[in-house]
Amino acid sequence: MIEKLIQEITKKNAPIVVGLDPMLGYVPEHILKEAFDKHGETLEGAAAAILEFNKGIVDAIYDIAPAVKPQIAMYEQFGIPGMVAFKETVDYCKEKGLIVIGDAKRGDIGSTSAAYAVAHLGKVQVGSKLYSAFGEDFVTVNPYLGSDGISPFIDVCKEQDKGIFVLVKTSNPSSGEFQDKVFEGKPLYELVAQKVAEWGSECMDGTYSNIGCVIGATYPEMGKVLRKIMPNTYILVPGYGAQGGTAKDLAAYFNEDGLGAIVNSSRGIIAAYKQEKYSKYGSKNYAEASRQAVLDMKEDINSVL
Amino acid sequence: MIEKLIQEITKKNAPIVVGLDPMLGYVPEHILKEAFDKHGETLEGAAAAILEFNKGIVDAIYDIAPAVKPQIAMYEQFGIPGMVAFKETVDYCKEKGLIVIGDAKRGDIGSTSAAYAVAHLGKVQVGSKLYSAFGEDFVTVNPYLGSDGISPFIDVCKEQDKGIFVLVKTSNPSSGEFQDKVFEGKPLYELVAQKVAEWGSECMDGTYSNIGCVIGATYPEMGKVLRKIMPNTYILVPGYGAQGGTAKDLAAYFNEDGLGAIVNSSRGIIAAYKQEKYSKYGSKNYAEASRQAVLDMKEDINSVL
Repeated sequence: MIEKLIQEITKKNAPIVVGLDPMLGYVPEHILKEAFDKHGETLEGAAAAILEFNKGIVDAIYDIAPAVKPQIAMYEQFGIPGMVAFKETVDYCKEKGLIVIGDAKRGDIGSTSAAYAVAHLGKVQVGSKLYSAFGEDFVTVNPYLGSDGISPFIDVCKEQDKGIFVLVKTSNPSSGEFQDKVFEGKPLYELVAQKVAEWGSECMDGTYSNIGCVIGATYPEMGKVLRKIMPNTYILVPGYGAQGGTAKDLAAYFNEDGLGAIVNSSRGIIAAYKQEKYSKYGSKNYAEASRQAVLDMKEDINSVL
Repeated sequence: MIEKLIQEITKKNAPIVVGLDPMLGYVPEHILKEAFDKHGETLEGAAAAILEFNKGIVDAIYDIAPAVKPQIAMYEQFGIPGMVAFKETVDYCKEKGLIVIGDAKRGDIGSTSAAYAVAHLGKVQVGSKLYSAFGEDFVTVNPYLGSDGISPFIDVCKEQDKGIFVLVKTSNPSSGEFQDKVFEGKPLYELVAQKVAEWGSECMDGTYSNIGCVIGATYPEMGKVLRKIMPNTYILVPGYGAQGGTAKDLAAYFNEDGLGAIVNSSRGIIAAYKQEKYSKYGSKNYAEASRQAVLDMKEDINSVL
């Protein structure tokens, strides 16, 4: 699956992913109104609004962006209707040829991790039939529980040609509380990175592995070190834009082949129309503002490669 | 909420929680057949089967067990119908007066963690209305991302009188890969425990805090040390029974007041009828086997307190 992602990145010359994290506050008034008129101020109404909002953005960016990263929490908060909107978003993006990274940060052990892997990447058996539950291409995974939590995902990745991104160093201010603790001269995030490289070697797909990792754009010095520890690992990079990471910070996340990293922007793209820079589009043309934000981001990132 | 859990534990004299982790392989043939006859071998059929299975167990144990812990992964793997079964399981358990611990192991940052907290413990705002999405009483949370990931849960716990259990030392064999790494003389799980105690002090509910933790029954020596680091923290203990933890191992997880821990058993209770010990019940009376397994577990654990 990482090969397919790389192909799309190369074809579109855009190592970027659009984070579909639709807070209701981002959804333009006319979409909210239509959804609430139809469903009332209900969970169904909220779900209809975010799905419509997403579709507008996807229609505007699918030819210039290789991938999207819906953040499941933003759908889960709207209960069952929200999960339906998540599933419909995944399906819609796949129909449009986009690679879908489910930002789920799941992680458990044994048969439970296997169930999450099956839910998001694999197929679940019901009697003699097999079904895909949510059907993303990649999913993000939390490493705190160790190999027991990761192996079931690797098994499904091998079976189904799917991939995962394992949290190594997250973009948030307090990520260092545990991740930066040093033992035997190495911070925890490096130990996790070593494991990611080891897990990844079992699951190669061309030059890179289907087992990727997450390193925040906000910690470029660490990104530089981690890039070298995991030369064949694709890095999913959150924290660009709204969280403070700049393109200059990102150069070190890429390999000399110009590959090896894919940078996420969520708010910066999907709520672009709320920024002064894109205010000329207005809320009715929010999707065009998102398209322009993708083009600008692409130029910004390519300028440092 | 921890006060309410303690009241139920005390009333029923049972510091135990029944893990509702319904693999299809646990569901008796007659329930599967009825569900598949009605819905076919579909996700809906699987969801109907696990819901029916759960209800049978809940009917058989709600008067002797204080709490249940549905493992969301086992529902999520069946997609939307599975999530509906999860929600209906939560609702059914609450109707029966059981405390519900959603075993979700969620964890993210900022507004995303807030969305998870809202999804499982809080209320989400849609226009002028508020809705509860899944409505558990407690949820398990992963600490890898640090305080930024936990604070939004704490806010919701305070607002709604709910609780969380933060992973400290998990029960699985490879949990030590990261959790046992030592810095400045202290393993990571102790550092996490110190943070849990600190977070918990903000969120007291009587003698104990609404911020609890998870420590596997399979690491009793560590449990003993951790008990002292977090005197006011309730410990949710997985790993009893099927994973190898014994009652003798568990004494150290409790405080001198006989409180401070609640021990989970999943397979050992919900699939009790498959064990030789309970085979006399047969698959038709699987729920009675589960009831007897709860009574036996209660006796076993109380014998060491």
